[in-house]
Amino acid sequence: MSWLDQVAWNEKGLAPVITQEFSTKQVLTLAWMNREALALTAEKGHAVYWSRSRQKLWHKGEQSGHQQQVKSIRIDCDNDAILLEVEQIGGIACHTGRHHCFFNKLIDGQWQATEPVIKNPEDIYS
Amino acid sequence: MSWLDQVAWNEKGLAPVITQEFSTKQVLTLAWMNREALALTAEKGHAVYWSRSRQKLWHKGEQSGHQQQVKSIRIDCDNDAILLEVEQIGGIACHTGRHHCFFNKLIDGQWQATEPVIKNPEDIYS
Repeated sequence: MSWLDQVAWNEKGLAPVITQEFSTKQVLTLAWMNREALALTAEKGHAVYWSRSRQKLWHKGEQSGHQQQVKSIRIDCDNDAILLEVEQIGGIACHTGRHHCFFNKLIDGQWQATEPVIKNPEDIYS
Repeated sequence: MSWLDQVAWNEKGLAPVITQEFSTKQVLTLAWMNREALALTAEKGHAVYWSRSRQKLWHKGEQSGHQQQVKSIRIDCDNDAILLEVEQIGGIACHTGRHHCFFNKLIDGQWQATEPVIKNPEDIYS
């Protein structure tokens, strides 16, 4: 049995993937993979996700250059969530131009942005 | 508009929650919350999840004593994933008796357990 078959893919054939920066241990993103995306991630050594909005494989960094180089791949105790450790090329994981996607923090009953935009998204994706 | 209404709950009314240990920055678990679980987590100051297998609220640690004391609550750029920073009481987040749930690592094409069992689950849940 392949390690890929041991993943408990959900009813849509997907699993959530936590991506954590290897050097800082900061959680960068939560994204999704299907079987093919996980196979490609292991084979290529960079993160390949399944884009639920575009319904296609998404080689992270294909447009922005902000590739994620994989250091380790882990799975949880019930085999339905994946944890990637990566080095984030360019230091920007978020499409808003921030270091990571979890920049809104609950403070006094409101979500408040606590992280700066490093690069204007128009400059990243132009 | 309440901060709870700003979460992009999925078609089942849930959002995935990454729980990270505040002191070590280790990713402990991926779990799920509904609106009520998130409200209770913020109100009580300890992690309350939605158990998909039991279909009910799950005050983490209610049986084991391994409560998670919340240090911060964050949401991602598209409002559909949550990141908790917690202190893990008892040092055990996983029902297998391990520190965290991501103890299986992909090595040479196989998922291999890389973390010790700290406490026998039979002793945790008896």
